[in-house]
Amino acid sequence: MGPHDGSVQGVQRSPAEEARTLVAQCATAALATLGEDGAPWSSLVALAATADGTPVLCLSTLAEHGRNAARDARASLMVAAGPALDRGRVTLAGRLEAPTAPEIEAARSPYDGFPDFTYYALRVERVRWVGGPGRMAWVAPADYHAAQPDPVAPSAAGAVAHLNADHAHNLLDMARALGGHPDARAAACTGIDRYGLDLRVETPKGAEPVRIAFAERVDAPDGLRAAAVELARRARGATVES
Amino acid sequence: MGPHDGSVQGVQRSPAEEARTLVAQCATAALATLGEDGAPWSSLVALAATADGTPVLCLSTLAEHGRNAARDARASLMVAAGPALDRGRVTLAGRLEAPTAPEIEAARSPYDGFPDFTYYALRVERVRWVGGPGRMAWVAPADYHAAQPDPVAPSAAGAVAHLNADHAHNLLDMARALGGHPDARAAACTGIDRYGLDLRVETPKGAEPVRIAFAERVDAPDGLRAAAVELARRARGATVES
Repeated sequence: MGPHDGSVQGVQRSPAEEARTLVAQCATAALATLGEDGAPWSSLVALAATADGTPVLCLSTLAEHGRNAARDARASLMVAAGPALDRGRVTLAGRLEAPTAPEIEAARSPYDGFPDFTYYALRVERVRWVGGPGRMAWVAPADYHAAQPDPVAPSAAGAVAHLNADHAHNLLDMARALGGHPDARAAACTGIDRYGLDLRVETPKGAEPVRIAFAERVDAPDGLRAAAVELARRARGATVES
Repeated sequence: MGPHDGSVQGVQRSPAEEARTLVAQCATAALATLGEDGAPWSSLVALAATADGTPVLCLSTLAEHGRNAARDARASLMVAAGPALDRGRVTLAGRLEAPTAPEIEAARSPYDGFPDFTYYALRVERVRWVGGPGRMAWVAPADYHAAQPDPVAPSAAGAVAHLNADHAHNLLDMARALGGHPDARAAACTGIDRYGLDLRVETPKGAEPVRIAFAERVDAPDGLRAAAVELARRARGATVES
């Protein structure tokens, strides 16, 4: 498929980066543990993660999942960007073990020091990322740990809202000059990450998803604005020249 | 504890009603299934429920959870009002079985008819509700199935926002006349259900949670307004008389 067929193009976060970003962003997760009879048990837990993405939990020994974890170390965590099935989520599976002191330090719980709470680190053995319909991948645990969470993820939703509210004309310039749709009638931003923008472009043939890459990867949490301004200037220049 | 000590008072939804309401309201859930080696696997699934609260799932036989369900029927579903730990959630556990035709009808999936999707009904054997810190209960499966979902739950968030935006004076009347805090300085609504309102009341001694019961249980989805108006009039009358 070519650059002008409307499919999403350009550099994007890898599945490993998507998985690390989800785990870094989400404060809770769905934990699956095993009951005394080996049956599964699904529960909501607070989630923290160390610098290499190791999930650290603090479980009450009085709760079902705490008793399960103490009895059988096998566990799985599902972290979702939201409740909808078209949003990203990742399942991690492995074994719950006692965290190291630095791991506890990195994931200090509000229940720290309570006698009936125990810290666990999930030693990750399997990682399955699902980005939405048709977007999914198994990720090697080493790749998961080596990947970086996207530093702009925490500000992405605000940036998308701002671009759509105040910069619709810039998005249209981008769709026309950089997105392969010179006949675009309108464009809305549907996502943003360290590598670029996702646009939904209204064309004479209908709506098309378009990926617009930043000139350079954004490496700082506050770097989105400069990258978007550079895109807007480049698109405006190309539009004026044409 | 008496009616004026600031603790939440009055008729409230039972844990069974809370559980049924959560399952009726949520379109997705976290499913825990068992892998070939008996290890747990946590995943996001679309959730529908029949009239008696039986959860019905439609799983891809190509996905990990679909293969797990076909191999071992034991499963658990966790349904959460939101990602935060201070919100309600419920865990159901039991066995995945072939649904009856009426059950499928009640929970028709967008994937209906796709060859690689299979419907399952969860036969509920255990129900654990957690409302937030210190609020939790085991619910007998028969009580879960017999309970009604709260008909006003879908409009509750909008009603809370409206009361706080436009009726702060009525909430203050309620806190003073009906909530046992004649010295209240302000009141905000923190929740609403078919049985009444939850207020956060600012008193000279600090903030206090207060429960204000409706005169009658609300039985229709659009019955919240009339019940709140009755409360406001009753509170205003008592304030004027005093």
